[in-house]
Amino acid sequence: MTTTSIQPKQEIVLTGDRTTGKLHLGHYVGSLKSRVQLQQQYETYIMLADVQALTTHFHNPGLLSQSVRQVALDYLSVGIDPECATIFVQSMVPEIAELTIFYSMFVTVSSLRHNPTVKHEAQERGYEDLYYGFLGYPVSQAADITFCKASLVPAGEDQIPHIEQTRKIVRRFNELYAPVLVEPQILVGERLDGLDGDSKMSKSLGNAICLDASTEDVQTQIRRAKTDPGRIHKTDPGHPEVCTIYGYHCIFRKEGSAEIRENCMKGTIGCAACKAMITEAIEDVLEPIRERRELYKYRPKDIDDMLMAGTAKARKVARQTMKEVREAMGMNYFPLTSEQ
Amino acid sequence: MTTTSIQPKQEIVLTGDRTTGKLHLGHYVGSLKSRVQLQQQYETYIMLADVQALTTHFHNPGLLSQSVRQVALDYLSVGIDPECATIFVQSMVPEIAELTIFYSMFVTVSSLRHNPTVKHEAQERGYEDLYYGFLGYPVSQAADITFCKASLVPAGEDQIPHIEQTRKIVRRFNELYAPVLVEPQILVGERLDGLDGDSKMSKSLGNAICLDASTEDVQTQIRRAKTDPGRIHKTDPGHPEVCTIYGYHCIFRKEGSAEIRENCMKGTIGCAACKAMITEAIEDVLEPIRERRELYKYRPKDIDDMLMAGTAKARKVARQTMKEVREAMGMNYFPLTSEQ
Ligand code: SF4
Ligand code: SF4
Repeated sequence: MTTTSIQPKQEIVLTGDRTTGKLHLGHYVGSLKSRVQLQQQYETYIMLADVQALTTHFHNPGLLSQSVRQVALDYLSVGIDPECATIFVQSMVPEIAELTIFYSMFVTVSSLRHNPTVKHEAQERGYEDLYYGFLGYPVSQAADITFCKASLVPAGEDQIPHIEQTRKIVRRFNELYAPVLVEPQILVGERLDGLDGDSKMSKSLGNAICLDASTEDVQTQIRRAKTDPGRIHKTDPGHPEVCTIYGYHCIFRKEGSAEIRENCMKGTIGCAACKAMITEAIEDVLEPIRERRELYKYRPKDIDDMLMAGTAKARKVARQTMKEVREAMGMNYFPLTSEQ
Repeated sequence: MTTTSIQPKQEIVLTGDRTTGKLHLGHYVGSLKSRVQLQQQYETYIMLADVQALTTHFHNPGLLSQSVRQVALDYLSVGIDPECATIFVQSMVPEIAELTIFYSMFVTVSSLRHNPTVKHEAQERGYEDLYYGFLGYPVSQAADITFCKASLVPAGEDQIPHIEQTRKIVRRFNELYAPVLVEPQILVGERLDGLDGDSKMSKSLGNAICLDASTEDVQTQIRRAKTDPGRIHKTDPGHPEVCTIYGYHCIFRKEGSAEIRENCMKGTIGCAACKAMITEAIEDVLEPIRERRELYKYRPKDIDDMLMAGTAKARKVARQTMKEVREAMGMNYFPLTSEQ
């Protein structure tokens, strides 16, 4: 993804990840890569979405606590620079909770029930009887995005309905009270299939290459990845369009992918050789990530300090937005105490 | 209602009112009267529930702003003493929003949909497609009650399902994480019928005697109140059980109510005389309220100062509970900044 399509105006960028485990190549391709570029140009907020993680992992809060630091380390490893981007912890910005509550007053239950991503995710997880917080997470996302008046949200395609929900909430708020909030745009990232070729790369489906995978891990995982099942001998003509590895070529070796396609279809390349090429390309992505990880891995205190500073900065912005929201709603009865 | 039935232990009391208009005799009978007693014995928190008011009045926030001060004045007028009780504004305690979000993770949508009070109120207001915030207000009430670890909630009978919901949330939280929260008990107040005799006294139904009603207002309203419709002449035998005024006797003139009942049934008292007696009894309640109102009416600055002080005190308690909740959930990643 390049950023040349973005208008040359001052954008505020908000992205983030649920803290339910380490990040993987799917995150990298879908959003992390573009964040590293965006942070240079725009005011960028990156959220460790631990409250959103609770919607599916409330019974396992230990995992969240661990993941908050893991994901922060992943961020630093991919090249997110805390001097450029504000990395913060969602649960430590109470204004996000307050905005969620305010927005929930004018969002209907049925609009949430009909949100295709909520529906799909509920099915995937086998939720018959939805939890109230799970059903409402698009409202909470609207609060995440609007607390800093983000105008641009780099995210996966599956987030389109949520951004649309946020845009609706913003319009409704601005119309009901006063034009305080900003309607965000989504910057859709590339989608990476999982190693099983069946669905999007996802840690919970066990089909992911983590950003901290070793060279051996990558080799093993790529070796086991699903290719064209109809191809037995390396001279059989292949069908790259059904092959996960070909999909990876299109993303990690775009310039060479047409050649791979041709050779595969003609049966002039074997899957082992093809996989070796993609392994190398993925290694080229992961190697600098590994190097940066080494720099931060043994400095947990520095990571905590960075999160504290980022959270404090996010809160400052959140407080200002909250002040404007209260004024717009006529709910600024008296000044908040200095402690607030 | 007397407080003699309460166990002689240290209770923490939480009550409050939606700030959707002035309070009336129904509030007085149902809860205010007992608060004035409870505040002497127990740590008492009284909440101006402006966020809950938003669930039904989000399109009219001007009303909320006005009502916050009106209801505060009503509190002082009935004898709530800010030296004893902590009066605070719900929307200015962000920890309540944070707790609401946390609890919403493990409350199912169907348990909220089956809450009889939510159902009844939704029907009454003609809500076909519920708003998300409206559906979830029992979750928000659980946050209101638990932020100060209230053990006793004086409220109307219609609040029983909500308190039951709170108790469930408390048990679930304590079981999932750590035994931090307190299960509250409800202290059910008396129910006062509206002047139309059709339903509970309620401002929105136009069947209420406000606490700031003048003597003339009370006389006119009682004169128009519905009695036994079968009684034409004052010597006709009446049916006190279908008469609103008889209901008022049972509440405001309990000691004389048996005699009224007898005389009504025998046709030895006319409705006008019966109404004059109840007018007098209501005047006995309202007169000291009016006197106190005169003391505070022209001191809006003092009321604001009282609300600011009460809110600051409530926040202090809320922050402590939130700290324990975060610890229990393993979400106390690092110390909050001093500003938080
Ligand atoms: S040669 Fe490459 S693209 Fe073709 S099936 Fe094998 S792995 Fe897939
Ligand atoms: S006499 Fe009193 S109790 Fe009987 S019907 Fe008339 S108002 Fe009601």
